[in-house]
Amino acid sequence: MSVFLIGAGPGGVDQMTMGAARALARCDAVVHDDLGASSSDVLGLATKEGVEVIAVGKRGGASASWQQDDICNLIVQLAQRGKKVARLKGGCPSVFARVSDEISALRAAGVSYKMIPGISSALSAPLSVGVPLTDRDLGRHFSVTSAHDPDGIDFSAFAGIDTCVFLMVGKSLPVVVERLRRDARKPSTMTCCVIRNGMQADERSWFGTLDDIVEKTSGESLSPCVLVVGNVVTLVGDVMTLA
Amino acid sequence: MSVFLIGAGPGGVDQMTMGAARALARCDAVVHDDLGASSSDVLGLATKEGVEVIAVGKRGGASASWQQDDICNLIVQLAQRGKKVARLKGGCPSVFARVSDEISALRAAGVSYKMIPGISSALSAPLSVGVPLTDRDLGRHFSVTSAHDPDGIDFSAFAGIDTCVFLMVGKSLPVVVERLRRDARKPSTMTCCVIRNGMQADERSWFGTLDDIVEKTSGESLSPCVLVVGNVVTLVGDVMTLA
Repeated sequence: MSVFLIGAGPGGVDQMTMGAARALARCDAVVHDDLGASSSDVLGLATKEGVEVIAVGKRGGASASWQQDDICNLIVQLAQRGKKVARLKGGCPSVFARVSDEISALRAAGVSYKMIPGISSALSAPLSVGVPLTDRDLGRHFSVTSAHDPDGIDFSAFAGIDTCVFLMVGKSLPVVVERLRRDARKPSTMTCCVIRNGMQADERSWFGTLDDIVEKTSGESLSPCVLVVGNVVTLVGDVMTLA
Repeated sequence: MSVFLIGAGPGGVDQMTMGAARALARCDAVVHDDLGASSSDVLGLATKEGVEVIAVGKRGGASASWQQDDICNLIVQLAQRGKKVARLKGGCPSVFARVSDEISALRAAGVSYKMIPGISSALSAPLSVGVPLTDRDLGRHFSVTSAHDPDGIDFSAFAGIDTCVFLMVGKSLPVVVERLRRDARKPSTMTCCVIRNGMQADERSWFGTLDDIVEKTSGESLSPCVLVVGNVVTLVGDVMTLA
C-alpha cells in the first residue's frame, strides 16, 4: 500500500522531474488535479498497462467538483486495494497544494506515502520572464503567499521582506497592491510584475510599479497569475524565446 | 549564440526536469558547479558528440577555485565561438544562484540566454522529510533566506512570517536561532528541523524546537543544511523510504 504525492510543476512534460515521471510510470492508478492545457501529455507518462486515471480537479463552481474528503477516501481505498497510487498535483506538494488533509487520511489508514517535489510556479514563473527571486544586492530574501483570500492575511508580515511573491492572483490584485502599500509599507515606486501562465506557450506578463500595475492589467483576465514585488524585478532583460 | 542557465535541482538525475535534461543533451559545452555525489550521473545527460565539460565549482578555500568574472568570461567566449552552452547550477537559478553577474555579462556581450528552473532545496529538503512549507492552518506564507552571512540579515523581517526557511546553514545555526528568538520574536518552543543532504541517499534530519535544536545537532557536520522553522514542521510523519 503506497501513495506518491507528486508535483507536476507548472504544466507540461518538460517541467516535470525525471523522478516524478518514473514514479508515474510505475503506478496502477493516477488521481490528478486539473493540469491545464498539457494535461494529456503529462498523463501520457502513466504507461503501466491497465492504469486507472481519475480526474478530481476542483474547478471553481462546477457541480461535479470533487470534495477534499472524497479525494482522501479515493486515494486511501485505491491503496488499500493494493494499487500503487500517484496523486498528481500542479506545482509542488510543498506550496499551497493542500496536502495535509491527504497526509492525515493516509496516516490514519496506515498507508505509506512519499512526496515528490515539483517546480513551483512561485519560482518558475518569474524565472520564465527573466527574474530570479534573489540577488546579492537586490533581494536577500523572498516570501511566498497565496492571494486567494487576501483578507485572511496580515500584510504587515511582508514589510521587511525584499521580494514578495503572491500566487493565485486574479481579481484580488487591487486589494493585494493596496495592502502592500498600506500595511507592508512598500513604496508606490516599487517595481513589480504579473505573470499569467508562466512557462506555458501562452505566457503573458506585465511590468510596472505598485502605483500603476493595476491600471496596466485592467481589463485582462489575470487568473491564474503570479505577482512578484521587489527590486529583483529590475533584473529583467530580453530573454530568449525557447526554441 | 545562446546560453541556458539550468537548475540541476538538489542532486541526481531524478531531481532534474525533463526540459533541463533535454537542453543539456543539445549543448556543445557544459559549464557546471559542484553538483555533489551524483555529479557524473547528471553530466552523463550531456550526450552530444564532442561536448566540452568544464567544472567551475567554487569549493571554499580551494586555490583552483574559479572567480565569478572568469566564469562569466568563459560562458560568453564559448557562446561567441558559436557553441550552445549549458551553465549548470545546483538547485534553481532563481534561488541564491548568483545569476545576475552572468546575466549582465551575457547581455553586455549580446548573447541570448534562457533560465530553466530546477527544484530548489528550500522546497525539496523539507518535503523529503515529510514537511510541506504551507498549510491552511499552520503556514499561510513562507520565507527563504541564505544563512551564509547571518550578520548581513535583519531578522526582524521574519517576525510575521509563518514558515521561515534558511539555506546554507552550517556553523551559523546558533546565530540564526538566537536572532530568530531575539529579533524575529519567535518563541523558544517553536518547532524546527534541520535537514542535511535533503533528497540524497545520505540524507539526515534533526527535529526539535528553537530551544534545543542547537544542542541536538551539536558535534554534527551540518553543512550544507536547510533549517525550517514554523508550525508546519509538526505535520511531519513517518514517511516511506523511496523504493
